[in-house]
Amino acid sequence: MLSPLIDQLIAALRVLPGVGPKSAQRMALHLLERNRAGGEHLAKSLLSACAQVKRCDLCRTLTEQPRCYICASEKRDGTLLCVVENPMDVVAVEQSGTFRGKYFVLLGRLSPMDGIGPGELGLDLLMERLRAEPIGELIVATNPTMEGEATAFYIAERAKQLNVTVSRIAHGVPIGGELEFIDGGTLAHALACRREI
Amino acid sequence: MLSPLIDQLIAALRVLPGVGPKSAQRMALHLLERNRAGGEHLAKSLLSACAQVKRCDLCRTLTEQPRCYICASEKRDGTLLCVVENPMDVVAVEQSGTFRGKYFVLLGRLSPMDGIGPGELGLDLLMERLRAEPIGELIVATNPTMEGEATAFYIAERAKQLNVTVSRIAHGVPIGGELEFIDGGTLAHALACRREI
Repeated sequence: MLSPLIDQLIAALRVLPGVGPKSAQRMALHLLERNRAGGEHLAKSLLSACAQVKRCDLCRTLTEQPRCYICASEKRDGTLLCVVENPMDVVAVEQSGTFRGKYFVLLGRLSPMDGIGPGELGLDLLMERLRAEPIGELIVATNPTMEGEATAFYIAERAKQLNVTVSRIAHGVPIGGELEFIDGGTLAHALACRREI
Repeated sequence: MLSPLIDQLIAALRVLPGVGPKSAQRMALHLLERNRAGGEHLAKSLLSACAQVKRCDLCRTLTEQPRCYICASEKRDGTLLCVVENPMDVVAVEQSGTFRGKYFVLLGRLSPMDGIGPGELGLDLLMERLRAEPIGELIVATNPTMEGEATAFYIAERAKQLNVTVSRIAHGVPIGGELEFIDGGTLAHALACRREI
């Protein structure tokens, strides 16, 4: 609409999640008009992150070091291991502020239709850790979707063969949520998994 | 939260308008996890746009050529000139699809408190164009804010001295809007500026 380079920038901004044509246009013009230094800094940060960020050798989350800061930390409880689907989930659990153990990131979930089997999820790596490290409890925090549940079940079966306690995070009505607005499936699960008080 | 480079990328993404800490985190992890090629392309587009995009010599909008494609076009009506506050407004008017004239971009509005006077808005350049070119009508499309109105009034006064017809875009109830939800000021203006049908 304005010039080839600006149009190219607007199109390139569309790779960002949640950014449609209108926001991309607003972002491009905002950066060019008001904050070129910020735009250049963003471009450089993006280039160095894309080039240098790899996976943690141990837990497979994103990091530019061989081991992520959680795996490298001596303050974390090495006997507790939380299995999540992706690095975003590590951040989410960290932000809950209560988990002091370590992580294992599957980078997906079992999905035979898409060719994602135990190998792709690094489950051999996980089992090796369960064998080699003094892990007392494996907390499976995959998403409560069909595939996430299947993955959790599969991991639990394999971990139990190694005599590791396996737990699943609780699913039910979110704290602060109102029953009126909760879907039937969640509510049915919350009822079925009720606890004595 | 994850690693210094990722944290730096998340912070850098915050320069984008409308992007808070949560979206920045989601964007950074999405690019690193799922679309590094897109991220690198975005970074390169951003660097070349920041380095090469300048202002059009004639209308002051953003372009990497000496003249923007509108000023350079022979198909546009050179007797109609639309004055807008910034390049985003050029895009907005273009997207309305009905204006076939050319533009002049003020890059702001009169605001003596912020040290923005006629010089900063390039009004001498505008007046020179009104003298040199066969411009029959100057359409002032500054925003209907206090400063935008003052700017429009000032430009109209100066243009009239050069015997150029000056018009202001209409303000009132937006097409598709409902009276019920329109603010009182707009409605008062719409009533005062009513037209016989």
